[in-house]
Amino acid sequence: MTTHRAVEGREVAHAPLQEGRLVDAATTARVDRLVLETIERRGRTVTAVSDELEPVLRAAREAAGGGKRIRAALVVWGWRGAASRSVEPDDAVVGVAAGLELFHLAALVHDDVMDRSGLRRGRPTVHRVFEREHRRRGFEGRAADFGSAVATLVGDLCLTWADALVSDALRQLEPSRVEATRRVWDDLRTEVMAGQYLDLLEQQRRGSRLDVLRRVTTYKSAKYTVEQPLLLGAALGGAPAALREGYSAFGLDVGEAFQLRDDLLGVFGDPDLTGKPSGEDLREGKRTLLVALAERRADAVQQRLLHRDVGDAHLDADRLGRLRQVLVETGAVREVEQRIDELVARAHRRLAGLDVPQPVRAALASAASACAWRLA
Amino acid sequence: MTTHRAVEGREVAHAPLQEGRLVDAATTARVDRLVLETIERRGRTVTAVSDELEPVLRAAREAAGGGKRIRAALVVWGWRGAASRSVEPDDAVVGVAAGLELFHLAALVHDDVMDRSGLRRGRPTVHRVFEREHRRRGFEGRAADFGSAVATLVGDLCLTWADALVSDALRQLEPSRVEATRRVWDDLRTEVMAGQYLDLLEQQRRGSRLDVLRRVTTYKSAKYTVEQPLLLGAALGGAPAALREGYSAFGLDVGEAFQLRDDLLGVFGDPDLTGKPSGEDLREGKRTLLVALAERRADAVQQRLLHRDVGDAHLDADRLGRLRQVLVETGAVREVEQRIDELVARAHRRLAGLDVPQPVRAALASAASACAWRLA
Repeated sequence: MTTHRAVEGREVAHAPLQEGRLVDAATTARVDRLVLETIERRGRTVTAVSDELEPVLRAAREAAGGGKRIRAALVVWGWRGAASRSVEPDDAVVGVAAGLELFHLAALVHDDVMDRSGLRRGRPTVHRVFEREHRRRGFEGRAADFGSAVATLVGDLCLTWADALVSDALRQLEPSRVEATRRVWDDLRTEVMAGQYLDLLEQQRRGSRLDVLRRVTTYKSAKYTVEQPLLLGAALGGAPAALREGYSAFGLDVGEAFQLRDDLLGVFGDPDLTGKPSGEDLREGKRTLLVALAERRADAVQQRLLHRDVGDAHLDADRLGRLRQVLVETGAVREVEQRIDELVARAHRRLAGLDVPQPVRAALASAASACAWRLA
Repeated sequence: MTTHRAVEGREVAHAPLQEGRLVDAATTARVDRLVLETIERRGRTVTAVSDELEPVLRAAREAAGGGKRIRAALVVWGWRGAASRSVEPDDAVVGVAAGLELFHLAALVHDDVMDRSGLRRGRPTVHRVFEREHRRRGFEGRAADFGSAVATLVGDLCLTWADALVSDALRQLEPSRVEATRRVWDDLRTEVMAGQYLDLLEQQRRGSRLDVLRRVTTYKSAKYTVEQPLLLGAALGGAPAALREGYSAFGLDVGEAFQLRDDLLGVFGDPDLTGKPSGEDLREGKRTLLVALAERRADAVQQRLLHRDVGDAHLDADRLGRLRQVLVETGAVREVEQRIDELVARAHRRLAGLDVPQPVRAALASAASACAWRLA
């Protein structure tokens, strides 16, 4: 895992990994189809109210495209491991996986409103789309308020439909597994929102607190992106306690690595890879562990630079380069890279102890690396 | 039903109705308890993330209080009518009724963000509470943005918990009735959001369109507040098609009357009764059927007044009084009152044809009047 380009303070074009075995095309296609079918089917109820609702559906449809479906893949692999079979998942499993992706879409749409982000997966965010629509049609009132309001509604619709999708799926599941699956599904949704609140709070505060940022990483990323999708699969497949605990420990490590990699990509990432402008996190002044570590290790000159430039929306390439340099020179980048390496190494060791069929182990091994590199 | 005070352009203190038999204290107490228990129980997952989440729970708890629980009552009466029994509802029925109230809470919290409302049920709205918290704690960034973001999250949590509550309830229901109940629950949530979008759109437009405002009334109020709660009860009780159709026709009439009364109260209502400042709708410039009718019937002088003063947030009592006078003198108030009378009369006739036990008929009769007067 070479990271020399990041260390030089330039953009990371690619991580040197083969495309993972984590996300298989057949499952992704089924999940994508189910997500879009749900939007179409539930959308008929919406357009029956008025055909003026068509733009709302279009926004949901467009926002639904382009996801990597990592969470869905982890649900399916988690189920395969529990079911001790490396086979095509049945409709209940794919339904829950697709419901999770639809929920994730809703969470992203709402997060983008909260963070006032303009781009997501390389396209304008939902609130930005309706802000423009407001201007284009010469509406009264504030365009930004209209955009936020409509995006809130689009998110609410997707939350509702995700729930409907999961409930439909659970009706096809053997009854003894429904309660356990629902418990994970309910906890997952509650905990990611709690993590988002903590993140919001931290972004408003003067000074960063490492313990809070670590907790945000645990709940918004490690649990939500990796551990809980695996546990959903485990519950769907009726996994014994030992496997659930194994999934948990593995998932928390990989998920934390995933988020730390994301923090690095938010600063050093190639826009073609991340779908966001280069250095976006620095321009937005996002409080990440990476930046908090740099603040803690910076000398007086570096601190002044961090204080002045992090959060400056108009940062040019030159000043962005100098900021990146500070992150490297303080050792913050190295510390984060080392932590990622440790987490990924430990995740691989944990994986060796899991009682799952070999193809499941191979896929999760690839997840450990691929998630950490965010290339899957 | 005397409305002479409104016709004189003054505030309506009370509608001359006895407290309805619609909302019975025992059911309301069970619903309230279940809503609060859900917030407490799910809240433990939230505070396990960090005790800094406590204010989020407090906000949810406080926002949950003070509702009239009309929708829950209609679920229970709808079920009693279908079950042909005038008995205490079982836990599945109360669970769905409480889930609907928790969903309603979420919808109100999000609506208040969209409408930028400062008061709800006589207390500061959730986004306003966190806006103040932001200022009090000297946070960075815009206080209003923080307030909106947290309120979005509080609403999202309540949406999730409403869903969890309904799902738990449905597991106690005989399986043959689950699918029908879920269909109403999913449609209800989707349609009210579609209605809210249409309302938002209409509020941004120059000029009002009566047909769109009528459709907003149908979906945001008539179906959501009366028809669909009755249909939820019907599905829970396994009602035959004839009763479902009867509930529908009755519910749409009563629900429209409810909204029209609400439009009148938004202009002429006593703050003690509505929990909102007097004349709030006029100061906010809310596009209601009442105002749209007045615009249509106004002469040149009246039109100038409407154009100038509707939507002026700083309207004093004097100018508010003159605006009210215009609504009366154009005949808009009379037209709305007449429509309410017709709807309520027709609802009573429809009720006479419903095959339900006498206590159910009496309660729904009281709903027809009480909802129209919004006193229950």
